[in-house]
Amino acid sequence: MKIKKLTAVSLIIFAPLQIAFSQPSAPREVPAKSIPVPTTVSPEIQKQIAAPLTSTWNVIPTTADGWREQVTAGALATEKIIPALLTKLDVKVEPTLIDGVKAFVITPATISAQNKNRLLIHVHGGCFVSSPGLSGTVEAIYMAGLEHVKVISVDYRMPPDHPYPAALDDAMKVWSATTKTHDPKKMAIFGSSAGGNLTLAMVLRAKRENLPLPAAIAPGTPMSDLTGAGDSFQTNSMVDNVLVAFGANCDQRAALYTNGHDPKDPLLSPVYGDLSGFPPTILTTGTRDLLLSNTVRVHRKLRNAGVTSTLQVFEGQSHAQYYRDINAPETKEAFDEIGLFFDQHLKK
Amino acid sequence: MKIKKLTAVSLIIFAPLQIAFSQPSAPREVPAKSIPVPTTVSPEIQKQIAAPLTSTWNVIPTTADGWREQVTAGALATEKIIPALLTKLDVKVEPTLIDGVKAFVITPATISAQNKNRLLIHVHGGCFVSSPGLSGTVEAIYMAGLEHVKVISVDYRMPPDHPYPAALDDAMKVWSATTKTHDPKKMAIFGSSAGGNLTLAMVLRAKRENLPLPAAIAPGTPMSDLTGAGDSFQTNSMVDNVLVAFGANCDQRAALYTNGHDPKDPLLSPVYGDLSGFPPTILTTGTRDLLLSNTVRVHRKLRNAGVTSTLQVFEGQSHAQYYRDINAPETKEAFDEIGLFFDQHLKK
Repeated sequence: MKIKKLTAVSLIIFAPLQIAFSQPSAPREVPAKSIPVPTTVSPEIQKQIAAPLTSTWNVIPTTADGWREQVTAGALATEKIIPALLTKLDVKVEPTLIDGVKAFVITPATISAQNKNRLLIHVHGGCFVSSPGLSGTVEAIYMAGLEHVKVISVDYRMPPDHPYPAALDDAMKVWSATTKTHDPKKMAIFGSSAGGNLTLAMVLRAKRENLPLPAAIAPGTPMSDLTGAGDSFQTNSMVDNVLVAFGANCDQRAALYTNGHDPKDPLLSPVYGDLSGFPPTILTTGTRDLLLSNTVRVHRKLRNAGVTSTLQVFEGQSHAQYYRDINAPETKEAFDEIGLFFDQHLKK
Repeated sequence: MKIKKLTAVSLIIFAPLQIAFSQPSAPREVPAKSIPVPTTVSPEIQKQIAAPLTSTWNVIPTTADGWREQVTAGALATEKIIPALLTKLDVKVEPTLIDGVKAFVITPATISAQNKNRLLIHVHGGCFVSSPGLSGTVEAIYMAGLEHVKVISVDYRMPPDHPYPAALDDAMKVWSATTKTHDPKKMAIFGSSAGGNLTLAMVLRAKRENLPLPAAIAPGTPMSDLTGAGDSFQTNSMVDNVLVAFGANCDQRAALYTNGHDPKDPLLSPVYGDLSGFPPTILTTGTRDLLLSNTVRVHRKLRNAGVTSTLQVFEGQSHAQYYRDINAPETKEAFDEIGLFFDQHLKK
C-alpha cells in the first residue's frame, strides 16, 4: 500500500525534530484501535459508516489512460443511481451549453414561491478529475429536489486532459454569463469537496475581476488546502472511509489539477486567500471527515474576516457523506440547513 | 493501564454483533499512528498540542480521601496561575454567598457600555468533581477580562461529598436569586465541560420549573452525554491529550456525580432532553476534542428543534483548550465569538 510509504516518510521527517525539541514538535503516539459503528446516527448513516474503505482509495493509475478508465468506471456506477433519484425527487436534468461550457439545468417539478426567481450554480466534487457529465449532478439533484430550487451544474473540463485553470475558467464563464441574465443577489454557488474548493476559488476570482459576487455560498467539506496542511489529514487518517488518507487517490487527482502550479496559490488552496468581503457562507462537514480541519479552518478564517458564516458538523460522517443516501434523515437536515441559509441571504 | 481493560470490554460487547450482522456493525480498524503537531494553529496552541497526556488522565483514586487529595492538588496548581491572570486582564474576584450558595463575583476594571446592565452566570468545568473554590474561576476571569462584562461564577457543591443533584441545585439557586435582582433578558449562562453540561441542564430545569430562561447560553464542549455514546469518544481516543479516552479519570468523576442515577436522565445527559424553546446557543469545541461528537450532537439537536445555534470548532484543539493560554490568539477568538453572540442576543 502506498500509504505505508507516506507514513514512513513522515516518521523520517519528524523523528529528528522530536529529538531536537521534544516539546513543540512532539507527535502524538496513537495506538491501533477498532472503532465501532456509533449508535448516535440514523440507521442509514450507520450503514455508510460500517461500509468498507472506498475500493479505489489507494489505487493510483500510472497513465492518463489509466485515469480515464478509472474515472469512467466511477461515472458509470454513479449514473446508474440517477434515474431512480430523479423519480424519487421529481426533478429533471437537461444538458445545455453556456458560453461554450457544458452544463446541466436541473429543475424540480415544484419550485417554491420564495425560490421562483432564484438560481443556484453548482460545481461538483470528484477531486478535480472524477464525476464528468451526468455523474457530477447528484448533489445538484439533491439540492433541487429537496429545496425546490432551480440549479445549473457546471460540467467543467478536467485532467488528465485539462488541468488548472480549465475547471475554474469554465465555472467563471458560467458565472459571468448567468449573472448577465439573472440578478446575482438572487444567486448562490455551492458544491462539495473539489466543488467546495471551486466555490471558494470562484468568489476569490470574482473579487479579483470585479465581477458580481453571489448572495451566499455553501462550500461543503472544501478541499481548501492542497498543500497537505490540516490536522485532520492525520487525526482522521484511516478513520474516514471515503478519502481514507492524505496522499492517496484523491490527492493524486488534485495533483493532476495543480499540474506543477504552486498549490499554495489561493486559487488552488483558497484557505490562503483573502476572504474579506465574502458573501455569507455555510460550511458542512462530519466528525470523521479527512477534511474536517480544512473545513473549520475556512470557517475560522471567514469569521476572523468578519464574514457571516455558519458551520454544520455531522456526527460520525466521513467525507461528503451527507449526499450519499437520500433516505438518511441527516441528508435532508444538511440540505434544509443550506436551503434555509440561502433563503435568509438571497433576495426573492 | 486501565484503558486497555476498557478496550477489551468494548471488543467483547461488539464482537457478537459483528458476527450477527457483519455490515451495519463492522468496526473501523485503524492502525497505530504518530500524529505530528500541526502547523495550522498558533505557536501557543502548537505548544498545547505538543504537550504530553495530562498526568492524571488515568490515575483513578480508590477512596473518597484519594479523590479529595487529587482534587486539592489540581486546585492548588490552578490557583497559582490566577494572580498573574487577574493582573494581566485587570479583573477582580470576590467571594460571595447567594441564597446560601458559594460563588464569586468577577468584575473587570472596565465594563463596556453595552454590558453595563448585563450579567453572566458561570458554571465551571472539572468533570463535576474538580476545580473547587477559586480554581473554578479561570474561565470566568477570561470572559470578564476579554469581553468586559460582569460574571458570577457558581462554586457549586461536588462529589465525593455531594453527588447529583447538589451541583445543579446550587446553580439553580443562584439562577433564581439573580434573576430576581437582574433582568434575565440581560443575562446569559456559560461554562465548559461539566460546566457545559450544567449550563444545558439549568435551562432544562428552568423550563421544567417555569423559571425565566437566560437570553443566550454558551456551553463549551459540554459533557452532554454521560452514557458513553458519541463517536469521538472512539475516534479521538488517545488523540485528545486532555481527557485522553472514555472511561478514564474524567468519566470516573462523572460517575461519582451520577452516583447510581440513570445517566440517560436529561438532567444528567442533556443531549437526551427536549431542547425546544432553548435560548440562542453558541457551542465551542476542537477537532481533537474527545467531546467533539457530544458538542456537535447538541448543535444538531438544537437546530432540529428550531433553536438559533452557532458552532465553532477550533483546529487541532483537544478538550477545552480554548481557555488554557491567555496569549493564544485562538483564545481571544473563541471568547470574542461568544461575546459577540451574547451582544447580539442580550438586551442592553
